[in-house]
Amino acid sequence: MKEITDLQREMLKKYHLDAMVTMTPENITYVTGAYIPTQVTVRSRKVIHIITEKHDPVVIVVNIEEPIMRAQSWMDPKSIISYNEFTQNPMMIAIDKLKEFGMETKRIGMELSYLSAIDMDLMHRELPHAEIVNADAAYEEMRFIKMQFELDRIISFGSNIEEVIYGAFASARAGMTEKDIYRFISNGFAEIAKGDKMSMPMVGSGVRSCLLNGEPTDKVLEKGDIVRVDVMGTKDNYYCDCCRTAVVGTPTEHQAETWSKLVKAHDDAIAQIKPGVSTKTIYDNFARQFTEWGFKPVAFIGHGLGLTLHEEPYINTYKDTTLRENMVLCVEPIHVIDGECGYQLENEVLVTADGHRMITGTRHPYQQLATIRADG
Amino acid sequence: MKEITDLQREMLKKYHLDAMVTMTPENITYVTGAYIPTQVTVRSRKVIHIITEKHDPVVIVVNIEEPIMRAQSWMDPKSIISYNEFTQNPMMIAIDKLKEFGMETKRIGMELSYLSAIDMDLMHRELPHAEIVNADAAYEEMRFIKMQFELDRIISFGSNIEEVIYGAFASARAGMTEKDIYRFISNGFAEIAKGDKMSMPMVGSGVRSCLLNGEPTDKVLEKGDIVRVDVMGTKDNYYCDCCRTAVVGTPTEHQAETWSKLVKAHDDAIAQIKPGVSTKTIYDNFARQFTEWGFKPVAFIGHGLGLTLHEEPYINTYKDTTLRENMVLCVEPIHVIDGECGYQLENEVLVTADGHRMITGTRHPYQQLATIRADG
Repeated sequence: MKEITDLQREMLKKYHLDAMVTMTPENITYVTGAYIPTQVTVRSRKVIHIITEKHDPVVIVVNIEEPIMRAQSWMDPKSIISYNEFTQNPMMIAIDKLKEFGMETKRIGMELSYLSAIDMDLMHRELPHAEIVNADAAYEEMRFIKMQFELDRIISFGSNIEEVIYGAFASARAGMTEKDIYRFISNGFAEIAKGDKMSMPMVGSGVRSCLLNGEPTDKVLEKGDIVRVDVMGTKDNYYCDCCRTAVVGTPTEHQAETWSKLVKAHDDAIAQIKPGVSTKTIYDNFARQFTEWGFKPVAFIGHGLGLTLHEEPYINTYKDTTLRENMVLCVEPIHVIDGECGYQLENEVLVTADGHRMITGTRHPYQQLATIRADG
Repeated sequence: MKEITDLQREMLKKYHLDAMVTMTPENITYVTGAYIPTQVTVRSRKVIHIITEKHDPVVIVVNIEEPIMRAQSWMDPKSIISYNEFTQNPMMIAIDKLKEFGMETKRIGMELSYLSAIDMDLMHRELPHAEIVNADAAYEEMRFIKMQFELDRIISFGSNIEEVIYGAFASARAGMTEKDIYRFISNGFAEIAKGDKMSMPMVGSGVRSCLLNGEPTDKVLEKGDIVRVDVMGTKDNYYCDCCRTAVVGTPTEHQAETWSKLVKAHDDAIAQIKPGVSTKTIYDNFARQFTEWGFKPVAFIGHGLGLTLHEEPYINTYKDTTLRENMVLCVEPIHVIDGECGYQLENEVLVTADGHRMITGTRHPYQQLATIRADG
């Protein structure tokens, strides 16, 4: 895709790089358009993409995945190089390509937070005069602002995910287990993702709703339980991420009140979202109010979303990013009462030219705490 | 778990290491008993386990996952150290722990095929007099032979997976799509895995059955199509991996004959499995016969199975491992007719004291090519 090649060339210039070597699963998908499943399940089956200022990009892929690369990628089929996983070292093929491209004494950007110590060692030995620099920031910057095709995927998928969660709440009842909720979610997800991948959803009930990323168990849903459900997964390689909380039976006054505060924290944060705004300001405003209520704020209230689940920009107090049009954020205040229960509300939001637009949270009123039937 | 701590201490001795620092998701699960989901979905949330000859193991985990570590791990709760992902670098905590354990000038084994270049650099800077060596082989060796609790998990799960595949074949018919088969598999898998994780299954029909790891598409099943289905996923962190081929409608004579040969290749390979046998011999025998038939052998006919999908020992021509009791292998001959279709048969096999035992392939006769109804 010409736009992404152009963007990579911009980054080469901005970061004073002569080449970029891409290896992380998410960035491989970004720069090639293909998702190679065994790169994730069998870690040694590396995929390596190389671009220089002057040369068209090439990609190195294990031979049994070459057909998938050919089928899914927009890259020139002639630039796809395959290897035998048992007899060839893909890193050596990449190094030979870098030599062929005249990179022996040049500045090569790599994802050093991912590149293994063994492969780094090989780079140093085979290209002793090259300068290997960390290009993590260049990739982050590239993927900050979503292109139209990315927005289309995120919006069309995300805008349906609420139905899956509320559908599961409607099918569940006291006496069923967390795993039953998982199965309702799984079926609903399959319906809208049409064969794409769901991550294991977080399903926690009662005291288990405290666990931030707890997987569903055989715990039985009981009247009065708080039930927290967080659904994540991909369609066409792009993530959705949406969380809701329900109560089994009629909410108590205290439960309803706690939820109202969480909704206010959520709505106040989203109200501030528009280009030019500082993420740190949004977080600090949130944390101040949360603390005033006697709630203990979690380390962040939001994160970017795209080819990965949590990506820049984060909305927290540690980093400060200025929001820009076509960023996609998840806003997710969470309130855990230790040893008792946890409440969470999460929606996907697009930064527009003059404000924002909700991607999730538009079809079911989240302002009211959801319920699950208590009569078994 | 005492057995695993003891085994690690054996490896320390055998590989002349003073400490082992574990970081890969699979080995973290092995040494702690816990599976930390966000270690995989958010790569920066590292989990680090340290053991020395003299010190009890400690594990470093992101604070929001600490409850999961406490709930799932057999480690002493006092030895679980948590960190804030935004303010603390888990690698620095590990380095401080190594210093506290007196490892400044010692031999530290790490998974250098996984450790990132940035973290390796930090190790070198902070522990300049320590010797950092690659311990990949020690982990491979540890996980070669399965303990009883591992076998129990693998067998109880694997022995049910055939039903899922044959159930999907029985529910499918011409006119449906590959994604319909995916949904049947997904539902069946959820039933037996009870909330555990399925990897995206391989579902390829017609010419798409050539793709070794193709994900299901909207391709419609047509009469005469070869349909190849490979199901992988975990229950209690241990994998199953089973593949079957079907034809839509009645198999032609040529299809039936091809399948018979694949069955013979599969059965002949399994017949040789017992302690003391060389994996290379098994592969070479297979490859010779396959070639005589005019089939092109794929690079391997089998692989180990456990906490990862493909692990040592491989049954191929490049490596030679002597089989030992309580290894678990997947045997999977595959025959691809380029541009036409692909056949594959895969079963899980346990190496016993005096031979082997099939884990899958016992409930439905795989000797006959499976069928899918052609009358839509």
